[in-house]
Amino acid sequence: MMPLRFDNRFSKEYLPPSFDSDRARAAFLRLKAAKEEGLPVDWMTLPKDYDKEEFSRILDAAQRIRAQSEVFVVIGIGGSYLGARAAIEFLYGQEHNLSKDAPQIFFAGNSLDPDESAALLDYCRDKEVSINVISKSGTTTEPAVAFRLWRKLLEEKYGEAAKERIFVTTDQRVRPGTLRELAEQKGYECFVVPDGIGGRYSVLSAVGLLPIAVSGADISAMMHGARDAMERYRDFSMENDCVRYAMARTALYESGKSVELFASFHPRMQLFGEWLKQLFGESEGKEHKALYPASVVYSTDLHSMGQYVQEGARVFFETMLEIGAPNTELLIPDDPKNTDGLNFLSGKTLGYVNDKAQEATIAAHAAGNAPVLEVRIDKADEYGFGELVYFFELSVAISGYLIDVNPFDQPGVEFYKRNMFKLLGKPGY
Amino acid sequence: MMPLRFDNRFSKEYLPPSFDSDRARAAFLRLKAAKEEGLPVDWMTLPKDYDKEEFSRILDAAQRIRAQSEVFVVIGIGGSYLGARAAIEFLYGQEHNLSKDAPQIFFAGNSLDPDESAALLDYCRDKEVSINVISKSGTTTEPAVAFRLWRKLLEEKYGEAAKERIFVTTDQRVRPGTLRELAEQKGYECFVVPDGIGGRYSVLSAVGLLPIAVSGADISAMMHGARDAMERYRDFSMENDCVRYAMARTALYESGKSVELFASFHPRMQLFGEWLKQLFGESEGKEHKALYPASVVYSTDLHSMGQYVQEGARVFFETMLEIGAPNTELLIPDDPKNTDGLNFLSGKTLGYVNDKAQEATIAAHAAGNAPVLEVRIDKADEYGFGELVYFFELSVAISGYLIDVNPFDQPGVEFYKRNMFKLLGKPGY
Repeated sequence: MMPLRFDNRFSKEYLPPSFDSDRARAAFLRLKAAKEEGLPVDWMTLPKDYDKEEFSRILDAAQRIRAQSEVFVVIGIGGSYLGARAAIEFLYGQEHNLSKDAPQIFFAGNSLDPDESAALLDYCRDKEVSINVISKSGTTTEPAVAFRLWRKLLEEKYGEAAKERIFVTTDQRVRPGTLRELAEQKGYECFVVPDGIGGRYSVLSAVGLLPIAVSGADISAMMHGARDAMERYRDFSMENDCVRYAMARTALYESGKSVELFASFHPRMQLFGEWLKQLFGESEGKEHKALYPASVVYSTDLHSMGQYVQEGARVFFETMLEIGAPNTELLIPDDPKNTDGLNFLSGKTLGYVNDKAQEATIAAHAAGNAPVLEVRIDKADEYGFGELVYFFELSVAISGYLIDVNPFDQPGVEFYKRNMFKLLGKPGY
Repeated sequence: MMPLRFDNRFSKEYLPPSFDSDRARAAFLRLKAAKEEGLPVDWMTLPKDYDKEEFSRILDAAQRIRAQSEVFVVIGIGGSYLGARAAIEFLYGQEHNLSKDAPQIFFAGNSLDPDESAALLDYCRDKEVSINVISKSGTTTEPAVAFRLWRKLLEEKYGEAAKERIFVTTDQRVRPGTLRELAEQKGYECFVVPDGIGGRYSVLSAVGLLPIAVSGADISAMMHGARDAMERYRDFSMENDCVRYAMARTALYESGKSVELFASFHPRMQLFGEWLKQLFGESEGKEHKALYPASVVYSTDLHSMGQYVQEGARVFFETMLEIGAPNTELLIPDDPKNTDGLNFLSGKTLGYVNDKAQEATIAAHAAGNAPVLEVRIDKADEYGFGELVYFFELSVAISGYLIDVNPFDQPGVEFYKRNMFKLLGKPGY
């Protein structure tokens, strides 16, 4: 099996011939020193240092949830749901809920829209349901409101036994007036949102692992992929793919590009694109700096954004997320009449055609002065997901230091929350 | 009921004090003259001039499809599916397939991914299925491949009677070797992809209307909303909201912005955002010009892209898509313990909180030097959807002429198709 690889063959002409290796080394060393500075970088060693006892409780809880549930509802917002959702769609596709082998998994508490909330609550009224609420503080508005609604539903349906169906991932500390305290009083099983890991870096902690395990995925293989990536990218060198990717995207940014377009020919990567947007936008987007992170799914979006990408303003570059082989083979049937002119594809697999479309697109975009970076894994499996996660987490941290921002804070996120609490009349605002 | 309105109160400081009214008038008049130039602008009068006989056949066919189907599969790509999908999610939410009142609706033939295709085919094997294939030429790779697979499934399931379950929306002309000819030979009911309307402007033709009608929506009310908008924006003036919006976004573009971020606090607008990306990206993105169109759904994405929007590079402005009132009221329950500190919201509706979040966000972004434009409709209903469609179609056409591109071609879309056919060895390439 080939490990993850990074390729910049279609963007070389945009890169300065010798991106200053001293600068790259300085950024890398700053990251290596971040732990001593007290920054939340425990994700860097998480694939090795994770809590083995909790990991085994996650596996147990997932088994119970699968056995007792037709529907599993994950309540969380931002980093508390994007990673798990990205993993589940990556492994089982966007239509994973059509399968009969696992509970249906829905993500709630990530908006304030009453219509969607009411529809999902209605749907679940006559189903067997378990929920996982994920919130470090327990006070973030969207998940807290949703948790009130879902707890009410479960208590109406199950009475005292609701506690067997409510799983809480939250702060480790038991303090008065916290979600943790409530959970212990009620007897909900608890998992930990770690202190030393920010939300957008938390998918390989209990935050992501419990929902991913409920989907039926092998979370040990996922940690294995991340651990191999951790070893691979541990040391600074100009051949370290995380360093190379961070340098390439920073050079493109500094050459005047405004947008990094994460693209993939695999619809299963759509939510991974959303996860990347948070990881990059929140880690780098401060002090009026950074690339705007956008995403597309091809070939779908070639028929919508393709015109712009080929011939619109040259303000972006593309980072293509590639997968070696699909999980399914599907043959294109022959049509004796050949009305659609596609008999030259009869008997070929869809995967083959998709790969050729990717190859053609990269060539066309590069020829149209849209630089392309490539990140490739072998297979859409747990191991590959673990590799991707670690690769991008380490890369964005290096990138943040290259443009001299702190990749681990998010000062702007609080701004609207305070405004909203003030408008809503929350005591103290 | 209030008509759609446009507001630029949170971006005025970025606009030149007097955007040249002669320039705006010239763009508007060029659009008005486009018909005589032979350009495909029949969408401009479609809300009045649509084919009434076909419209009534659409209603009939939708009734039959609803009666005979558990699942309805729409096969199309780009403009052949985005409008219908945007409308259905706008009206019934992203989880519309959870409802038991209408057939489940899936969109196929918009990618080449074998895993997703195989999963949906499997799911449908023991369901009652009807399909609608939408393709002007019948030869676009993605829908043509999907149509082969779905026709095969239906013929295996239903034999000769499959023809009662296959609906074809395609070119009007019957020519040898076309999808139209095949449909007539097989006895499939046909609808028309009009000649004078490009794919991205076609949602109010049979292309969009048949799937939308199958969802149970009132397509007459949708045409009514579009017709009222058509009357409202018919004449040039500096108070015409389409002119004002086109001027505002062009002024922001010319002041150095690279990205227009379509934002909404309503998850039901997510696919409408995708529809907008095609409409704007494909209409304007040529000659190395135009804003990069991106989209977000709030408050969800405030917890991912919020940091960037508040404090990242000032390369974008926001166009906020607002809806006056939700379709459902959902009260926030009280919690005697108030662990989450949200009792100040007890008894309030989710819709109220969502509106306040929107208000707070707009103020925070404007204060953070991110200009905001606002487009507001009263209600997420068919009438409002018709208004929105016409408003944005007319606005993008004016915008295109303001930056001096042809808003009705898409020369770059063909580029990758030719590359792909060559790589795949298609005869003649």
